[in-house]
Amino acid sequence: MSNSFGHLFRITTYGESHGPAIGVVIDGCPPGLVVDRDLIQKQMDRRRPGQSAIVSQRKEADEVEILSGVFENKTTGMPIHLMIRNEDAQSKDYSHLQDTFRPSHADFTYEAKYGHRDYRGGGRSSARETAARVAAGCFATMLLNHFNISITAFVSQVGNIIMDPLRSDLDHNRIDESAVRCPDPLIAAEMEELIRQVRKEGDTIGGRVSCIITGVPPGLGEPVFDKLQADLGKAMMSIQAVKGFEYGSGFQCMTMRGSQHNDAFSQTEGKISTITNYSGGIQGGISNGMPIYFNVAFKPVATIVAAQATVNSKGEEITVEGKGRHDPCVVPRAVPIVEAMAALTLADHMLRQRVYQNLSF
Amino acid sequence: MSNSFGHLFRITTYGESHGPAIGVVIDGCPPGLVVDRDLIQKQMDRRRPGQSAIVSQRKEADEVEILSGVFENKTTGMPIHLMIRNEDAQSKDYSHLQDTFRPSHADFTYEAKYGHRDYRGGGRSSARETAARVAAGCFATMLLNHFNISITAFVSQVGNIIMDPLRSDLDHNRIDESAVRCPDPLIAAEMEELIRQVRKEGDTIGGRVSCIITGVPPGLGEPVFDKLQADLGKAMMSIQAVKGFEYGSGFQCMTMRGSQHNDAFSQTEGKISTITNYSGGIQGGISNGMPIYFNVAFKPVATIVAAQATVNSKGEEITVEGKGRHDPCVVPRAVPIVEAMAALTLADHMLRQRVYQNLSF
Amino acid sequence: MSNSFGHLFRITTYGESHGPAIGVVIDGCPPGLVVDRDLIQKQMDRRRPGQSAIVSQRKEADEVEILSGVFENKTTGMPIHLMIRNEDAQSKDYSHLQDTFRPSHADFTYEAKYGHRDYRGGGRSSARETAARVAAGCFATMLLNHFNISITAFVSQVGNIIMDPLRSDLDHNRIDESAVRCPDPLIAAEMEELIRQVRKEGDTIGGRVSCIITGVPPGLGEPVFDKLQADLGKAMMSIQAVKGFEYGSGFQCMTMRGSQHNDAFSQTEGKISTITNYSGGIQGGISNGMPIYFNVAFKPVATIVAAQATVNSKGEEITVEGKGRHDPCVVPRAVPIVEAMAALTLADHMLRQRVYQNLSF
Amino acid sequence: MSNSFGHLFRITTYGESHGPAIGVVIDGCPPGLVVDRDLIQKQMDRRRPGQSAIVSQRKEADEVEILSGVFENKTTGMPIHLMIRNEDAQSKDYSHLQDTFRPSHADFTYEAKYGHRDYRGGGRSSARETAARVAAGCFATMLLNHFNISITAFVSQVGNIIMDPLRSDLDHNRIDESAVRCPDPLIAAEMEELIRQVRKEGDTIGGRVSCIITGVPPGLGEPVFDKLQADLGKAMMSIQAVKGFEYGSGFQCMTMRGSQHNDAFSQTEGKISTITNYSGGIQGGISNGMPIYFNVAFKPVATIVAAQATVNSKGEEITVEGKGRHDPCVVPRAVPIVEAMAALTLADHMLRQRVYQNLSF
Repeated sequence: MSNSFGHLFRITTYGESHGPAIGVVIDGCPPGLVVDRDLIQKQMDRRRPGQSAIVSQRKEADEVEILSGVFENKTTGMPIHLMIRNEDAQSKDYSHLQDTFRPSHADFTYEAKYGHRDYRGGGRSSARETAARVAAGCFATMLLNHFNISITAFVSQVGNIIMDPLRSDLDHNRIDESAVRCPDPLIAAEMEELIRQVRKEGDTIGGRVSCIITGVPPGLGEPVFDKLQADLGKAMMSIQAVKGFEYGSGFQCMTMRGSQHNDAFSQTEGKISTITNYSGGIQGGISNGMPIYFNVAFKPVATIVAAQATVNSKGEEITVEGKGRHDPCVVPRAVPIVEAMAALTLADHMLRQRVYQNLSF
Repeated sequence: MSNSFGHLFRITTYGESHGPAIGVVIDGCPPGLVVDRDLIQKQMDRRRPGQSAIVSQRKEADEVEILSGVFENKTTGMPIHLMIRNEDAQSKDYSHLQDTFRPSHADFTYEAKYGHRDYRGGGRSSARETAARVAAGCFATMLLNHFNISITAFVSQVGNIIMDPLRSDLDHNRIDESAVRCPDPLIAAEMEELIRQVRKEGDTIGGRVSCIITGVPPGLGEPVFDKLQADLGKAMMSIQAVKGFEYGSGFQCMTMRGSQHNDAFSQTEGKISTITNYSGGIQGGISNGMPIYFNVAFKPVATIVAAQATVNSKGEEITVEGKGRHDPCVVPRAVPIVEAMAALTLADHMLRQRVYQNLSF
Repeated sequence: MSNSFGHLFRITTYGESHGPAIGVVIDGCPPGLVVDRDLIQKQMDRRRPGQSAIVSQRKEADEVEILSGVFENKTTGMPIHLMIRNEDAQSKDYSHLQDTFRPSHADFTYEAKYGHRDYRGGGRSSARETAARVAAGCFATMLLNHFNISITAFVSQVGNIIMDPLRSDLDHNRIDESAVRCPDPLIAAEMEELIRQVRKEGDTIGGRVSCIITGVPPGLGEPVFDKLQADLGKAMMSIQAVKGFEYGSGFQCMTMRGSQHNDAFSQTEGKISTITNYSGGIQGGISNGMPIYFNVAFKPVATIVAAQATVNSKGEEITVEGKGRHDPCVVPRAVPIVEAMAALTLADHMLRQRVYQNLSF
Repeated sequence: MSNSFGHLFRITTYGESHGPAIGVVIDGCPPGLVVDRDLIQKQMDRRRPGQSAIVSQRKEADEVEILSGVFENKTTGMPIHLMIRNEDAQSKDYSHLQDTFRPSHADFTYEAKYGHRDYRGGGRSSARETAARVAAGCFATMLLNHFNISITAFVSQVGNIIMDPLRSDLDHNRIDESAVRCPDPLIAAEMEELIRQVRKEGDTIGGRVSCIITGVPPGLGEPVFDKLQADLGKAMMSIQAVKGFEYGSGFQCMTMRGSQHNDAFSQTEGKISTITNYSGGIQGGISNGMPIYFNVAFKPVATIVAAQATVNSKGEEITVEGKGRHDPCVVPRAVPIVEAMAALTLADHMLRQRVYQNLSF
């Protein structure tokens, strides 16, 4: 059951990095939704390797085949199967790693858990799996678009180069102007320069993706365990390489006073909103109509060029060197993945909320 | 389904702050486990209000009635119902709040979502609900004890007073020596002084709880969506007042290089471990046998004494003042809650791991 | 997870026959529903032992305590905890059975599965557990009443005394006029006479409960695995002593031709219905607006007075004699249980259907 | 969520009768299982159309592509995606049915529920969907084989031609000797003759599939809602055209006395078994080590050649005639489907049982 996410808008993904295909089945997408194939390809292109000089050079067109659940270009309410062929898998890059436990990769833990594993390119643990999430996320986005909910992620930190994600002057339309996907062109240039430098050194670097969701009506999210921030947190923490999640005031809240942190309510033309938004759009686990925003911390990619000491499956001490085609920094490609997981979480809660809406006794 | 947590070790909680009782049904606790009633009362006492001068003065004995699933003091594998009576609810403290949307409370969002709500003491949104989690967590702990898994949480930050949670000289046996539950006595004294000061000002303050889990064998956690850090993240983000979660290197990873962050494997007497532990004991979503550690950020409590501007359910601008008995800082009482949610997450994954363990074909 | 039923209208039951209490938590009942306490007590009274001369003489008032989720006599959308105290448990009746595997009881299988078990009165395997189902079912019924869905069960067979459950002259208002709950007074008298005779012989007898559901709109139920008949079937097969389930034409369909079995559609004043109803109100797993009807077969109760050969937990051959207070035939008391399980299934599917209803893109 | 079945051995199916492909993702199949491709093709061949003169003449090779979760011909514990291309879909056979509600088909209910539907060949409601179940069931069977659990289904009734499924002289090796899959050759010949006759008349006929499961150890199944018979019942009731399910004594139990129906325990060489087996191998919802057996009633196929009166989506009265290629009687092809659903149910419960097995405190 580990390969499914969501309750009412539910996805199940499958596939390995070097198998014939990866894909996803969406169960619970409402009928009648017009499929926006441009959106799908656009998001796939934003995630795929080879898109720019600062990402992995594996070549994948990442075209999405829709094999069920869509009829005359509209969803039918039946499960939607989306499949993406693996075309440029170069498995021989990995044959030397069959018995090697690469540092900070999942080789050791998969071996410990499963015994028999597909070691090629990390198998199921590869971030290639996220292509299926992005494809599925587009159907969630199509649904959310109908409710005027908009999700925007961007890069707000690479190494020590930091941009305040809540800066009021940011133009979200400029996110894709830079390969690094930071909306401030000057900071973006610095980030890219840093990534190029790190790559030249055969090293990798961490970073941060920020996400802002607008148009969410009050009422999404559930009390207790399925709080909206809990499900968003799980969604983000489930992405490869993520080490931390915070929303609203986040870790800053630790040094704040209640008198400072509380968001006073006000009313304008019948609409209740808050004057500040340290709550990040969620109170008691339920959206309050204000923008939702959160940050996600990504670690530096584990594959580096330099030789590293490690052990193999027999416990022998060996040295491993980076081969394969990898990213010096994952955050540029992580942007559509964060958006996809946010969309899937919101779509699920939007459907959950519909159950009780407009019931009057 | 929002009131349940876990798959194989699964809990469902119920109850409101000022209703007759709160409680929990545990479904999936294995049979034959001896019930440690001292552990239960000890953890309940660590969470309950009125335990020290720096927490809420509501008086609750928080005795746990075991109403099913235990026979001759051993679990039977049947659902275990644990019930805690509410004894010192003072609902009249809240009658003036019936139509008030208190800033940064759940009043507005519950009203928006449910229409009809129990406004007394926050109803279901009150952190009183966590008493049920703590009671259930003790059964998870009893199970984990048999596998020699140990979970320890403590306070590592209150406002600007910070203690490094990974300091090697910390003595976890000293956590409960201070009311604030920080194992360094000098820093604990400073924290308590700050909390007293904040209380005197009628204000509240945020803080951080850190948690370290040892004895976890390699293999717990699942790839993709139910990664161990994702389920721990959801567990923590589901606790009232939590704004952020990080594990291992956490948000620090953003400025690190791969060459620095990678945890080299080594082998000693047949046991594979890592030399550093930036991975926080989890790789590819699966435990690697190293200690798991994480931090949780808690916001300042929303109830403060000072008058605050807000609106009521008719949208009229009003002023609200803090009544009721509340905490100036939640982290001391949050320690057993963090431990409970960690235990429930680990117990669930321990049972999930048993499904495939020792299967050989 | 075995103790939960339903997805959106979800119940979790707990409790043993001779423990302090049994009960249920309902998660997902919509807010704003007025609680009909008379309905609850009426259904509890129809299920409870001691209600007539032809059922078990255990004395239980079966009063339902509502401990959460209801405020000012209306549901709040929060989990509803219903608890029923066990008052007349006579555990010493069972002490001689501690190591005995009674024929066709669950003693042996519980011992095999759990090792440690509460043997008193069958523990968790006792049909006393169904009191919690009936209590929860009343909340489902309250919800269904708002949609004008009506569920009626009655006894249509005891031993060889059979009544056609589809007879057009049956008056469902007369069901409770007889202790056996058969709406035909003459047949009811025969059934009761048979049950008295069987009891006098120290024996037990099987029977059938039929159920008719009217007012179900087209569209309830899901394709593939959660077909409405599949979920109804599981609901009924989960009741103690049930050996078979059939709906619509049922087992009779095996000898029918398609030309005979097909239900032709017709239209009257814009409403589409079928002329015959061999489909039993469900086509392709989804309700079609016609009445749903089904039959449930109950075996004779396993506890009989006569001495029976069996073995004990050491494998020794022993003889066991019936003690305790038991029913000579379960179907009279099974009527409200069948209604409860049907209501829970329908309420769940009614909420599931709401997710997609009235969505237009 | 309607397209998933099982908890720990969990499948999710997708696909329409006339779409490009149907398939299934298995989540939870343990690692290390050798894939028996012959078994897969054999079961697919037993289900596929065109296999004999008494079934539908649609031509499908039904070759199963394994696209993930298998490496070096062994399962890896990762999700297994099985895909079957639709090759001989003749959609123009159905274009005249776009707005027609065929009697006793799912056209009307799908239209009522979803609005937008793939009407070609019944779309998702077509029994073609069961090809995915059969493919997935083979992986369940591979798992069960390791525990020496054996599942055998066969036809025991077509129309009025009935064979006692518990006859001790039946040779299960002869099931596939007849196209109808009845192990008694003489009765099989009669059944086939009846089917040919029915087909000649342009009509269809109902029947019964019986299933016997041996080698199940005591302890499978869960108390209360997930009783083994409840999950088997749901599995069978979810198959297209099924109208009834009974296990053990089944509907016969209604006329039996407890003294007659009870299965006395006995012991031989330390092994406890029962002398009779009216319980059908399950007591209190849990397997007792005796053979499990059950019957499934299938209605006559709804598609017949004769003209039938019905209405279209505008409510107009029209006449519909059978086109497309259909079965005169489904039971011969239903045999591997019943086996697949039984295997999926048992595999799930086998994994569920492993969670608690061999835990000793």
